[in-house]
Amino acid sequence: MSDAVSPLATPFPAMPAIAGVRTATVRAGYKAWDRTDLTLALFDEGTAVAGVTTQSRCPSPEVEWCRAALPLGRVRALVVNAGNSNAFTGHRGRAAVEAIAARVAASIGCQPSDVFVASTGVIGVPLPIPTAEAGVDAALVAPETGWEAVAAAISTTDTFPKGAIARAVIGDRTVNIVGVIKGSGMIAPDMATMLGFIFTDAAIDPLFLQQMLNAANGRSFSCITVDGDTSTSDTVLAFATGKAGNAPLASHDDAGADAFAAALADVCLQLAQLVVRDGEGASKFIEIEVAGAESDDSARTIALSIANSPLVKTAIAGEDANWGRVVMAVGKAGEPAERDRLAIRFGDTQVAAGGLAVEGYDEAPVAAHLKGQDVRIGVDLGLGEGHATVWTCDLTHGYISINADYRS
Amino acid sequence: MSDAVSPLATPFPAMPAIAGVRTATVRAGYKAWDRTDLTLALFDEGTAVAGVTTQSRCPSPEVEWCRAALPLGRVRALVVNAGNSNAFTGHRGRAAVEAIAARVAASIGCQPSDVFVASTGVIGVPLPIPTAEAGVDAALVAPETGWEAVAAAISTTDTFPKGAIARAVIGDRTVNIVGVIKGSGMIAPDMATMLGFIFTDAAIDPLFLQQMLNAANGRSFSCITVDGDTSTSDTVLAFATGKAGNAPLASHDDAGADAFAAALADVCLQLAQLVVRDGEGASKFIEIEVAGAESDDSARTIALSIANSPLVKTAIAGEDANWGRVVMAVGKAGEPAERDRLAIRFGDTQVAAGGLAVEGYDEAPVAAHLKGQDVRIGVDLGLGEGHATVWTCDLTHGYISINADYRS
Repeated sequence: MSDAVSPLATPFPAMPAIAGVRTATVRAGYKAWDRTDLTLALFDEGTAVAGVTTQSRCPSPEVEWCRAALPLGRVRALVVNAGNSNAFTGHRGRAAVEAIAARVAASIGCQPSDVFVASTGVIGVPLPIPTAEAGVDAALVAPETGWEAVAAAISTTDTFPKGAIARAVIGDRTVNIVGVIKGSGMIAPDMATMLGFIFTDAAIDPLFLQQMLNAANGRSFSCITVDGDTSTSDTVLAFATGKAGNAPLASHDDAGADAFAAALADVCLQLAQLVVRDGEGASKFIEIEVAGAESDDSARTIALSIANSPLVKTAIAGEDANWGRVVMAVGKAGEPAERDRLAIRFGDTQVAAGGLAVEGYDEAPVAAHLKGQDVRIGVDLGLGEGHATVWTCDLTHGYISINADYRS
Repeated sequence: MSDAVSPLATPFPAMPAIAGVRTATVRAGYKAWDRTDLTLALFDEGTAVAGVTTQSRCPSPEVEWCRAALPLGRVRALVVNAGNSNAFTGHRGRAAVEAIAARVAASIGCQPSDVFVASTGVIGVPLPIPTAEAGVDAALVAPETGWEAVAAAISTTDTFPKGAIARAVIGDRTVNIVGVIKGSGMIAPDMATMLGFIFTDAAIDPLFLQQMLNAANGRSFSCITVDGDTSTSDTVLAFATGKAGNAPLASHDDAGADAFAAALADVCLQLAQLVVRDGEGASKFIEIEVAGAESDDSARTIALSIANSPLVKTAIAGEDANWGRVVMAVGKAGEPAERDRLAIRFGDTQVAAGGLAVEGYDEAPVAAHLKGQDVRIGVDLGLGEGHATVWTCDLTHGYISINADYRS
């Protein structure tokens, strides 16, 4: 595997500490590598939590653990393991998660269900319990670390650390929202998963936090794809410590709630797009906007059909203005579409409308657009008001090299 | 593009002439190439026809033309154009198909609806009518050609000609079924489509021929995938001249009907597998068998989820016994599955059962199996009786080279 940083990487932003959260990263040693691979975050009492997890029918025991704890809405600790996803490991995997939660709970004095666990890495190998327990013990006494160190410690084949920040005003208080994420394929080579963690000092009711996270997820994490493959371990958790001292938000009727929801959505979108920017082998960042569909859901399905098409992705990699492949991907999506109403745009150039190429189509501006790192494809189905935007990357020799030129 | 023949190629079989069918191939000149690219087949009166076409919502005018003519059940001619699919070309594309049918109909004295047309190649460029008409005129007076020449003339980026044969006994007659096919991606680079044509001298009612073809399609052409992309032009047509003199078949109750149906299914399966063997960049032929699903449809969806997973396909390319990626692909299929009942086999070796790796799993026989050209993956969901088998190829640098290292 290459150590080369993605050409689409962006610098890690300046991100403030969040009152009520302390983080530490240590080397548990899940693999024979010289880097941190266990992250511990501790939260003050009263912290709310919400989360979204993979839709896989074969979820990891970590995912099941988090799902069971989420309805309680409270959290005191988060442990993230990198290098072993612990997925598809049966009772042994479950025992490892329980051991981690019990160890932290005993140390800080809380319920095991107050401890959230997430793991990323190879599938099918039980997480070694002594390694995890020793790592947790070390993290409990380790010095506090910053967000960039956390972003690095949760990563696997990521080529750069990924973080995002936004702020919102609630009444007379300004609250901070920061997030870190890892992921560079829906599953990276033998190293699974998108894991994202969002931290805010705002005071928010956990049910309302969940509601806002669901909405943000629908326009961010659920609208990205690298290779169409879905991890067994995908998890995004949001933690709200309440230390900003704002009047707690419990519904969209509360002053500042919409501003917070917008800032949370902004952080989610930034994080999601960073995952695409670190897509395995990516050389182009691609935005696909579908309008005129019969519904938003239909638009999203069509947009993802385009985004997941190997032929569209290789055409973009080759800077080839091959809009016929977009027609193909619309046609195969299984959603309502009428060939003779279809319009397609590359960048700002209309290439096809009414079921055929536009009169006097000039490929030059399209070719110029495709030479850039950011590519935009627009499709109008001409049927209704449904709309969606998704993001993906191109499919290159780099993807094959990472995923095939490799032995487990 | 490479001229290298697929390492999975098989020799073209010896295939007999079919009484009542005459074929000719000529160079119409749809591209600047030195090869035949227009095929004309003429059928004696009384020939029955059946067909299946793409499920794309953006079908080519050829597909629409064939769909309109199929219910009539009769055919006198077939024209196949290679190098231009004529798809997504609006009224111009429709005019080209109508011009070809009219030209042939006027020459041989039949209805335009007795003339079937199929085209494969670039999307979005109207088929040039003068070129097509001149090609048809030349084909009408050209010497008769054999099946291998037909297989070559209908091909685009295929690396070898593909044909299949089977025989069946109906009463006291032995009937022949031969077929040719082209396709090396669901869409090849700028050159679309799977086109298959099956010819038999059996006498068969067109409705029953359609019924048998639908059944065969469900276990052959609908069970293969190279890249999950669906062409705008996929078409398989079956022609039955009746010259064998058998008592015409009209239902499964007729003597010999089941034998014929089995032989037709055999030809379809052979042709479908040949397309996989010419998959773009393929170095491995992969059979994926899913058992224990809640239904056959569910099994097929899960099998295609595995077959279309870029991570499974790259793992096979890398001869990597990465069975965790199979778990992932089962999990993402959206069909009923229970992680803790899942069993996975590579070749004849059980690698996982009951939701985790088998006790004492030895990777050596799996690694040896993966070094071969033919790879078998078995999944048992442990839920029901649903079963399906699909075929695909691996995903290699060759696929990227063909589809990205290329400008239109």
